[in-house]
Amino acid sequence: MIKTFNPDFKNTILEKLDQPSFLNYVGFIFTNIAEGKIEGELVLEDYHKQSQGFMHGGLTATLADTVAGYAAVTLIPKDYHVVTVELKVSYFYPGLGPKIMARGWVLKQGKKLNFCEAEVFSIKEEEEPLLIAKASVTMAIIHP
Amino acid sequence: MIKTFNPDFKNTILEKLDQPSFLNYVGFIFTNIAEGKIEGELVLEDYHKQSQGFMHGGLTATLADTVAGYAAVTLIPKDYHVVTVELKVSYFYPGLGPKIMARGWVLKQGKKLNFCEAEVFSIKEEEEPLLIAKASVTMAIIHP
Amino acid sequence: MIKTFNPDFKNTILEKLDQPSFLNYVGFIFTNIAEGKIEGELVLEDYHKQSQGFMHGGLTATLADTVAGYAAVTLIPKDYHVVTVELKVSYFYPGLGPKIMARGWVLKQGKKLNFCEAEVFSIKEEEEPLLIAKASVTMAIIHP
Amino acid sequence: MIKTFNPDFKNTILEKLDQPSFLNYVGFIFTNIAEGKIEGELVLEDYHKQSQGFMHGGLTATLADTVAGYAAVTLIPKDYHVVTVELKVSYFYPGLGPKIMARGWVLKQGKKLNFCEAEVFSIKEEEEPLLIAKASVTMAIIHP
Repeated sequence: MIKTFNPDFKNTILEKLDQPSFLNYVGFIFTNIAEGKIEGELVLEDYHKQSQGFMHGGLTATLADTVAGYAAVTLIPKDYHVVTVELKVSYFYPGLGPKIMARGWVLKQGKKLNFCEAEVFSIKEEEEPLLIAKASVTMAIIHP
Repeated sequence: MIKTFNPDFKNTILEKLDQPSFLNYVGFIFTNIAEGKIEGELVLEDYHKQSQGFMHGGLTATLADTVAGYAAVTLIPKDYHVVTVELKVSYFYPGLGPKIMARGWVLKQGKKLNFCEAEVFSIKEEEEPLLIAKASVTMAIIHP
Repeated sequence: MIKTFNPDFKNTILEKLDQPSFLNYVGFIFTNIAEGKIEGELVLEDYHKQSQGFMHGGLTATLADTVAGYAAVTLIPKDYHVVTVELKVSYFYPGLGPKIMARGWVLKQGKKLNFCEAEVFSIKEEEEPLLIAKASVTMAIIHP
Repeated sequence: MIKTFNPDFKNTILEKLDQPSFLNYVGFIFTNIAEGKIEGELVLEDYHKQSQGFMHGGLTATLADTVAGYAAVTLIPKDYHVVTVELKVSYFYPGLGPKIMARGWVLKQGKKLNFCEAEVFSIKEEEEPLLIAKASVTMAIIHP
């Protein structure tokens, strides 16, 4: 159902990532860039946490916004961009390390808006990934 | 309508803030702590930005979650805490510096849940603060 | 900050209301139509209720969507219309009669999107209106 | 992962449905009641529509709230009930008939909160169901 207007979307995204940014500052790394889908991960450090020792909920929202937004970027022409219209995150479990994984996808592609979803997981060795948050995100497509 | 169960809420919050945390890492500082209301600000730096040079939407969400959450903390007994159930942010304008201000408040206080709201503003000298985002946030109250 | 592109917005809305519709079916009546603001009310009947005897949460959402959407309609050119992009409702108290009041307004007017909010109140004689729900609603503006 | 605390949940729900209510008034019928999952449908009539001839967005929200809420009801003890904490609906396409189908499920079961999702589809004969809306819904569990 979804289709890209930029066959070279991987390079477009790699170029965007290759500059100083909030993503680099928090240490989130993309592990998979596919048509309409993004995955990435983060090693949880003390500076990611809130006062009770869990991942700050704003960082969870940051990861969700990022993978949802870049999933939308995979579909648009090279010189277009996207901005977040609104973001809603539901929190199921406290975010614990050692690793956090996030994945986002475009659920409904449109001409003006892409409706996306994202999931954030706590990853512990030898355990099933635990879904700690689910997000719905609306991205607006901006013409150059 | 709202009332605190911790007359010493300012010190409770100051103690929570005085430790390494994601808030310190991003450089958000509280400027006012009142019953059911929190205000704070951040000097926008390059490491706060996304690929187009605006404040990352996840950081906007982080500020909203923080001021809403601590607004809820002002009302609960000293040994209770809160966790975010869900967070929804609507984005009106790109976040630009030099300063960002955020304020949060409890809209409806309950025994199990506090419903909060937050606003985030771009602050430029000699201009009116610009409302760049509005959030609604549900905080659950956790007993010790 | 907000301004209308249809000086005759009251008549435009009265014409839209004067036809069979879900609003008529549920019995919601507009009591005030102003630039960027709508108010209306409903006499709560048994057929509005869910299994515990409170107003159905979907009806609360219907009132919020309606006053927010028509608040956006007051601002757009006569031959444009709006559609709901997304709606988020937080529920504070059960909806009780005898009357329900809803009001909606445009918080941030844009060229493509209007960001609106809405409040829903339970109204009992000789008591303060009770805020039972708060909504944020994004409306897209559709050109003819 | 999810499990019911009421082996007789089908009868519990059938009893709740067998009384005058907003659901009966709008004509929504349950077609499947399973552990943590509900499906139902509605024949779209003129009185369900808004001024442009599409299903009213508030009715879409009503169906989402209903299937999500009853999905939560399938899991709780017989004498407990649920209330909606918050509901968020994203709208992808206008709602068209002849039939509308809705399904809801519990995504994360908790002791105090059940996090649910719902999808609403337009159903035309000889066509694939069209996903017109997606919702996330938080239900609080109320003890007797």
